Amino acid sequence: MAYELHYWPTIQGRGEFVRLALEAAGADYVDVARGPESEGQGVTATMHYLDSPKFVHPPFAPPFLVDGKAVVGQTAAILLYLGPRLGLVAKNDLQRLWTHQLQLTIADAVMEAHDTHHPIATGLYYEDQKKEAVRRARAFREERIPKFLDWFESVLARNPRGSACLVGARLSYADLSLFQLVEGLLYAFPLATGRALQQAPLVAGLHTRVAQHRRVAAYFASERRIPFNEEGIFRRYPELDG
Amino acid sequence: MAYELHYWPTIQGRGEFVRLALEAAGADYVDVARGPESEGQGVTATMHYLDSPKFVHPPFAPPFLVDGKAVVGQTAAILLYLGPRLGLVAKNDLQRLWTHQLQLTIADAVMEAHDTHHPIATGLYYEDQKKEAVRRARAFREERIPKFLDWFESVLARNPRGSACLVGARLSYADLSLFQLVEGLLYAFPLATGRALQQAPLVAGLHTRVAQHRRVAAYFASERRIPFNEEGIFRRYPELDG
Repeated sequence: MAYELHYWPTIQGRGEFVRLALEAAGADYVDVARGPESEGQGVTATMHYLDSPKFVHPPFAPPFLVDGKAVVGQTAAILLYLGPRLGLVAKNDLQRLWTHQLQLTIADAVMEAHDTHHPIATGLYYEDQKKEAVRRARAFREERIPKFLDWFESVLARNPRGSACLVGARLSYADLSLFQLVEGLLYAFPLATGRALQQAPLVAGLHTRVAQHRRVAAYFASERRIPFNEEGIFRRYPELDG
Repeated sequence: MAYELHYWPTIQGRGEFVRLALEAAGADYVDVARGPESEGQGVTATMHYLDSPKFVHPPFAPPFLVDGKAVVGQTAAILLYLGPRLGLVAKNDLQRLWTHQLQLTIADAVMEAHDTHHPIATGLYYEDQKKEAVRRARAFREERIPKFLDWFESVLARNPRGSACLVGARLSYADLSLFQLVEGLLYAFPLATGRALQQAPLVAGLHTRVAQHRRVAAYFASERRIPFNEEGIFRRYPELDG
């Protein structure tokens, strides 16, 4: 049975980390909220899981995955669940836990990237917190982007199986997610991220290779890949880069 | 061999979620950074893991756990690792994943609580971002605290095994962490959290019961429990409550 991914239909957002894993594995899945309401899909189907009191494991927010009776929320937990099923993680328990740690650190970076344009409240428009956003984005560009990328650089450099992948010698969901983090940072902060990547050549190399992965490249060429836009996590506001 | 927990020695912070699990289970552990430098402990020992290029799985930041050859960073990943070993999680895989999801949602709330006093940059003093903090804390108090507590209330209400615990009928690390989240929110935002708890009586009940847990109560009465203070995640700045 196809996996059901539930996420907002007009943005990459956090759902994209799951979409990338499903696409790279060639998995059978339905991006439910993007489907037709007439077939029981669409945002209505997604909201049902959030609103109905009948679910014992209610997701806090999208994205969440439905796989038969399993309803799994939290991006990193979804990938923890999918990794072995999609062949996108090592078999060894400690390697799996390490891959998950990498994912959790990517999640932290994603939340910080989001907060550059929403430093005060998610419920307010960007325009109503722009002044604070300019201050927060500066610290993010100058301190946090280099810190995160330097750390991933050291992880790649120390991988005993070579620096092509974050864990072991095979593609994992953490590689796909690091690609997506870098891709998003390059969209939102092209100047600052370009500079940081010059100090992180192994990360830059991983980013290039993932984009060339056969199924990933086919996905990007399809209509299934939603372009970045200013409703998502990574937003290009020139005043926040520099 | 005793677990080695590495975390900043003067605050509860994120390390406290791990300390609580270790204490509630009566586990043998060393809080390394709080130990004597003369015995190879202290902050120097912790920094070694962060700075030395010899570690293949370098933690991004404290807390991290050392268990023999395993070095595990990220609070939620540490608890994912410790849960089965400490008997603080169900045996069933889907229950374990659900417990982890709850923990990840607690981690999100913790990060948001931190950002109320540091909405611009962790590297700046509170006084240098106080104006923004007042704005962010207001949104956190009015929208986020109720949203998080309401969700945990519904999780407790829907638990088929009763509303005493978040998962199944036995104490899990997620219960301990929800206690700590509520305890921290009550310290930092006593007025707002008190109001929110009136709408979340099951969460309030869990908070009361965990505090009465034999080993947890003994821990709180000991010098091992560091009091809340204004260096940690949860800080009492009266201007941020209301």
